[in-house]
Amino acid sequence: MNLRDTIRTIPDYPKPGIMFRDITTLLGDPRAFRRTVDELVQPYAGTKIEKVAGIEARGFILGGAVAHQLSAGFVPIRKKGKLPHTTVRIAYSLEYGVDEMEIHEDAILKGERVILVDDLIATGGTATAAAQLLRNLGAEVVAACFIVDLPELGGAAKLRDMGVPVRTLVEFEGH
Amino acid sequence: MNLRDTIRTIPDYPKPGIMFRDITTLLGDPRAFRRTVDELVQPYAGTKIEKVAGIEARGFILGGAVAHQLSAGFVPIRKKGKLPHTTVRIAYSLEYGVDEMEIHEDAILKGERVILVDDLIATGGTATAAAQLLRNLGAEVVAACFIVDLPELGGAAKLRDMGVPVRTLVEFEGH
Repeated sequence: MNLRDTIRTIPDYPKPGIMFRDITTLLGDPRAFRRTVDELVQPYAGTKIEKVAGIEARGFILGGAVAHQLSAGFVPIRKKGKLPHTTVRIAYSLEYGVDEMEIHEDAILKGERVILVDDLIATGGTATAAAQLLRNLGAEVVAACFIVDLPELGGAAKLRDMGVPVRTLVEFEGH
Repeated sequence: MNLRDTIRTIPDYPKPGIMFRDITTLLGDPRAFRRTVDELVQPYAGTKIEKVAGIEARGFILGGAVAHQLSAGFVPIRKKGKLPHTTVRIAYSLEYGVDEMEIHEDAILKGERVILVDDLIATGGTATAAAQLLRNLGAEVVAACFIVDLPELGGAAKLRDMGVPVRTLVEFEGH
């Protein structure tokens, strides 16, 4: 099985010119989903990972499975206004304008080793902000893991420039 | 360890009079998170479960882990307008008004055995609609699993009235 072949491409979604990489077909395939989780965490199996942080919303699916596989805790990074307790926030750039994401201020203890998880890394606006948010709480960001990398958009390179190791399983050209 | 003690209660959130049961503290505790997943699926381990359907957004975290544990595929049930391919929709009641949720029409094959997952069952408006949506695609809804039940609000009873077995781990009184 080639994981790449389990990802569906939807042309012109959400707007003309974008080739949307739809991972729901991968997630729905039992063998592909299990292999994705197991391959993503393989370098970290047996190492001490206290927390897995997932980015809302698709990062929650993969992050929950990764946390379970590593016997780590799970920490949600959410869009602003969704978390019920005291949070810390960070702004990040969207294609047009800015938005903010949040994490509970007590979700990470200083020095904890954390893996950041999302489904796809593109320009890296969300992922670099999430990594910085984790560091602001004192986390050691051991790695950022994604199923799909769009390397032309440069997000993985930005994370590596921050000193965050990046692990991805499938690459696609273009957007 | 008592799972109940790992859940944080936030009084008067999101509005006065509501005791919000915050499961992020359970998710963030590695032992509590693993035990939750393992206990939820224990009756279904070794049985044939093709898909685990999680309800956006907190149901994605637990659902991803449950799917991984059962070596099943994961299917997202999302708020309308979030899924990229052809969907089927169902309306459900909120406290004020109605909303719609969606699933990809090809996410479930007729006759597949599916477990529905969310973090908490209260009045059951979301969960009963999600179970009906799965049935509309031909799924056999083997069970609906939640960490927390608020039995006074009657949601679990509504699911059982639909013929859906319900599994929960922790009960709280009131809202």
